Amino acid sequence: MSDPQRRPRPTARLLLSAPDRPGLVAAIAEFIFRNGGDVTQADQHNDEEEGMFFQRVEFRMDDAFKLSRSQLPLALAEVAEPLQMTWSVRYSDDDRRVAVLASRQSHCLVDLLGRWYAHELPGRLVLVASNHPDHAELVGHFGIPYHHLPVTPETRPAQEAALVRVLDEAGVELVVLARYMQILTATVIDRYPDRVVNIHHSFLPAFSGGQPYHQAYAQGVKLIGATAHYATAHLDQGPIIEQDTARVTHRDGVADLARTGRDLETVVLARAVRLHLTDRVLVHGRKTIVF
Amino acid sequence: MSDPQRRPRPTARLLLSAPDRPGLVAAIAEFIFRNGGDVTQADQHNDEEEGMFFQRVEFRMDDAFKLSRSQLPLALAEVAEPLQMTWSVRYSDDDRRVAVLASRQSHCLVDLLGRWYAHELPGRLVLVASNHPDHAELVGHFGIPYHHLPVTPETRPAQEAALVRVLDEAGVELVVLARYMQILTATVIDRYPDRVVNIHHSFLPAFSGGQPYHQAYAQGVKLIGATAHYATAHLDQGPIIEQDTARVTHRDGVADLARTGRDLETVVLARAVRLHLTDRVLVHGRKTIVF
Amino acid sequence: MSDPQRRPRPTARLLLSAPDRPGLVAAIAEFIFRNGGDVTQADQHNDEEEGMFFQRVEFRMDDAFKLSRSQLPLALAEVAEPLQMTWSVRYSDDDRRVAVLASRQSHCLVDLLGRWYAHELPGRLVLVASNHPDHAELVGHFGIPYHHLPVTPETRPAQEAALVRVLDEAGVELVVLARYMQILTATVIDRYPDRVVNIHHSFLPAFSGGQPYHQAYAQGVKLIGATAHYATAHLDQGPIIEQDTARVTHRDGVADLARTGRDLETVVLARAVRLHLTDRVLVHGRKTIVF
Amino acid sequence: MSDPQRRPRPTARLLLSAPDRPGLVAAIAEFIFRNGGDVTQADQHNDEEEGMFFQRVEFRMDDAFKLSRSQLPLALAEVAEPLQMTWSVRYSDDDRRVAVLASRQSHCLVDLLGRWYAHELPGRLVLVASNHPDHAELVGHFGIPYHHLPVTPETRPAQEAALVRVLDEAGVELVVLARYMQILTATVIDRYPDRVVNIHHSFLPAFSGGQPYHQAYAQGVKLIGATAHYATAHLDQGPIIEQDTARVTHRDGVADLARTGRDLETVVLARAVRLHLTDRVLVHGRKTIVF
Repeated sequence: MSDPQRRPRPTARLLLSAPDRPGLVAAIAEFIFRNGGDVTQADQHNDEEEGMFFQRVEFRMDDAFKLSRSQLPLALAEVAEPLQMTWSVRYSDDDRRVAVLASRQSHCLVDLLGRWYAHELPGRLVLVASNHPDHAELVGHFGIPYHHLPVTPETRPAQEAALVRVLDEAGVELVVLARYMQILTATVIDRYPDRVVNIHHSFLPAFSGGQPYHQAYAQGVKLIGATAHYATAHLDQGPIIEQDTARVTHRDGVADLARTGRDLETVVLARAVRLHLTDRVLVHGRKTIVF
Repeated sequence: MSDPQRRPRPTARLLLSAPDRPGLVAAIAEFIFRNGGDVTQADQHNDEEEGMFFQRVEFRMDDAFKLSRSQLPLALAEVAEPLQMTWSVRYSDDDRRVAVLASRQSHCLVDLLGRWYAHELPGRLVLVASNHPDHAELVGHFGIPYHHLPVTPETRPAQEAALVRVLDEAGVELVVLARYMQILTATVIDRYPDRVVNIHHSFLPAFSGGQPYHQAYAQGVKLIGATAHYATAHLDQGPIIEQDTARVTHRDGVADLARTGRDLETVVLARAVRLHLTDRVLVHGRKTIVF
Repeated sequence: MSDPQRRPRPTARLLLSAPDRPGLVAAIAEFIFRNGGDVTQADQHNDEEEGMFFQRVEFRMDDAFKLSRSQLPLALAEVAEPLQMTWSVRYSDDDRRVAVLASRQSHCLVDLLGRWYAHELPGRLVLVASNHPDHAELVGHFGIPYHHLPVTPETRPAQEAALVRVLDEAGVELVVLARYMQILTATVIDRYPDRVVNIHHSFLPAFSGGQPYHQAYAQGVKLIGATAHYATAHLDQGPIIEQDTARVTHRDGVADLARTGRDLETVVLARAVRLHLTDRVLVHGRKTIVF
Repeated sequence: MSDPQRRPRPTARLLLSAPDRPGLVAAIAEFIFRNGGDVTQADQHNDEEEGMFFQRVEFRMDDAFKLSRSQLPLALAEVAEPLQMTWSVRYSDDDRRVAVLASRQSHCLVDLLGRWYAHELPGRLVLVASNHPDHAELVGHFGIPYHHLPVTPETRPAQEAALVRVLDEAGVELVVLARYMQILTATVIDRYPDRVVNIHHSFLPAFSGGQPYHQAYAQGVKLIGATAHYATAHLDQGPIIEQDTARVTHRDGVADLARTGRDLETVVLARAVRLHLTDRVLVHGRKTIVF
């Protein structure tokens, strides 16, 4: 979707992990070469403490490539299995369907709408859902369906069931929590493992939980932060994808911290969404490898 | 407009400059105190090389304040004149009418619309003008008039005359060039001295002029930048308000630099607009003092 | 000590705090002006939540100034008392005697020695003390006394008593913990309130306590930090003076985080020391105002 | 030298460039695997505009590796030649002999001495040369020879000849210009192609040439920068290795910019030296690939 002039031909993107041993790089490189692929990017990481090998390989699949998209997985499995590799393959022209969940604050939502409008989002924004009706009209102007799903502690199970139905029907593969101020339970999280990206408005693990800007103000920190991470059943503890900080001073009250923070949140979330949608994030345990 | 809970009562904002001499701070502090004002922020700068004094003072004007808004200038002049002070006074609740000029690229425009939508812009977005029709519908959705003013080298004088007419009729006090890709002549610039804010997509003075990302790529720099400055008759040389940089690598082609740069441009321009609209920028010669 | 060409004449530096009320700025400005002083810098902060006023004023005390250094406190007290001001006054040419405490790691120590060697430290480095003998020779080369004060849990009281003796005899006013890996008890801390600066190798409050880089590695954070703060009886919880962060990736093992961190620690500690020694830090409760 | 616990066994580091074609990655991976090497890091870059392929591969050469250090180049050449590869191989335990050139300012020099003292420099500091005698004693304390080589416009040829003699005799492979304030001519530069690292005290290409902080002050920039680059015959135009910026304000006079800048220069130069000495920099034309 983005940069059409730079990557005119579709590429395949392979994400691999395996117990480390000599020959892994050679095996994959040889497989791609043998089948007529042309590697355009390859990046590997060896975690020496855990003895693990991780790799992202991107390669062109033009006319010279000998395997169809339906043949590739089978052929790759033959190489990967003896080496105990876990792998996934995606294509640069995949139709990635993205949902955004928001509440009252609009900064992350409008930013993502703006990227969608400018053809900068490497995916298709298929729906926005919210526990508030506030932004229905705005989202509608961008031509995107808006699902108002109000929620109370009592109706949470039903609301989440409705949410899952909406996501499933739209074929969503990535759920972006754009300052969605409700805690999602396992009903949603477990259905989209490593596919729900949340933005937390602090430099985690500092100031997890509620009202991080109030906490930051009380502590008198000289920097505030924002953290994009995959949502898990443990609040604010999922694998971190991206973080950034901004300088603040004693002059900044809670409202100032929040305002400065909104610009941070916006850009940190957008970067994480882009990393995910370009298949650059590999989750291992509670950490990410970001290629 | 923003932070209503923190500054509930209107404040006056005084921007002063004068040849430095003892007693300037005392004279202003005494004037405000004598008239029943309460200073909430005061910041001064002494340029020792030039022997100049600059100050921004913000003070509350509630019931206790003895001067009306029409009386204040006269009373202040009596203090300021003997001290050779140049000064201006604005109020936090002034209706600041802002115009945005844009071309094809939408990132800065949508960001400013989003801030306006979220009540974060400390001013009123009264119109968008563009040499292209592209964003008319989007801007209309936000309820803001869109003026399509196409331009060619031949029609520039007429187009600029039309632009000035539109700005004047709307009572605009700040013109924001949100990646407006046309050079404005003195027709517009001279009418809005220190009131046209431009975003240049490089760390000025590096890469002034056209295609800064191509220049940056050719040079192999490891950081790219963005610069918000007041537009003057000299292209890319007006007083700098705000700058920032972002890290790039050899992997980043021109399109990648441009994409990373757009996030920089957006936030640097937004900060400059906010600084201007909260009366924090004082221009002195070719430089700014940003309180 | 530094910048002799820019501040040739000595200045007085006033740090003030008071319950906020109208007229505080005017009272101080008038006092300085009336006595012939010339304000070169003034910076104020109003904490609206707590109703407190804080100010730093720097003014020239050349021949025209009517008060001697022994008269100034008395004269100032007359103004300050009715306004319930807490205040302190220091002079730019004060002889500030600084001690550095270090352990095995040398990066912060060598950095401070280097600044001292280059006449960049705005104070006089009068001694280094350490629980290890490692750096005695190096420090000696710089002409600075080195006190080797080994410590075990059993000998801590005696060692701290010896340390206090050494500090007192040298007339030390600032103690810099340059990666000193021993916890100081109230014996030392209470004797130097708000005058012991520590560098913690994380972005506090994240990763307080031991082995912050191990903690950061385990969490998979994308940034690491360093925090300079005043040491208090509560470990890693004293008022924060300065913080900064640096970007890291999944490639960085604990040793890499530590190496990147050392550069952060060095510069963050040096900035905090400079801020303290130029009288720019005012402690209020558990927070600092850094002018 | 550094991180002994993490990389106990020596590794080979291969830097490759070649006209891009399919199979390059596979050829190298297969070569290493076939000879019993174990890739610990591999990073590649494809410059699509120029059709060039660049790679850095690091692999363990323990007992299982079949080639000796004298055999490796020959064996590698057999693979590389048909693919038109340009390559170099270095070993992690190579004895890299480093010279530092300095003038009056000591900050970069002391920083490098401190890293050497802390066993953090991935090389051996074998000599310091300077056109001033100022730091002879300090450098001597660190046990490093100091060559005082004064220079005037008339004596430059003789001085540079003497400098080359000193460098050659010490077997120096990297020359670090640590704020050495003399222009080196081709006599020195051509003898150490891509092996003389300079630190320029601005964000190049802005403010090349003399007195960059004066230029930055005059322009009123809001950030200052530092640039480490390979020295070439063209002043301040050699391939950039590393850059960084720091925020400044209107309050900062030239002396303040210089002081803030010194911290930037120190860390940017140190990073570039480390990158060079760990074989992470590949020069291509006027740009670098930094793996």
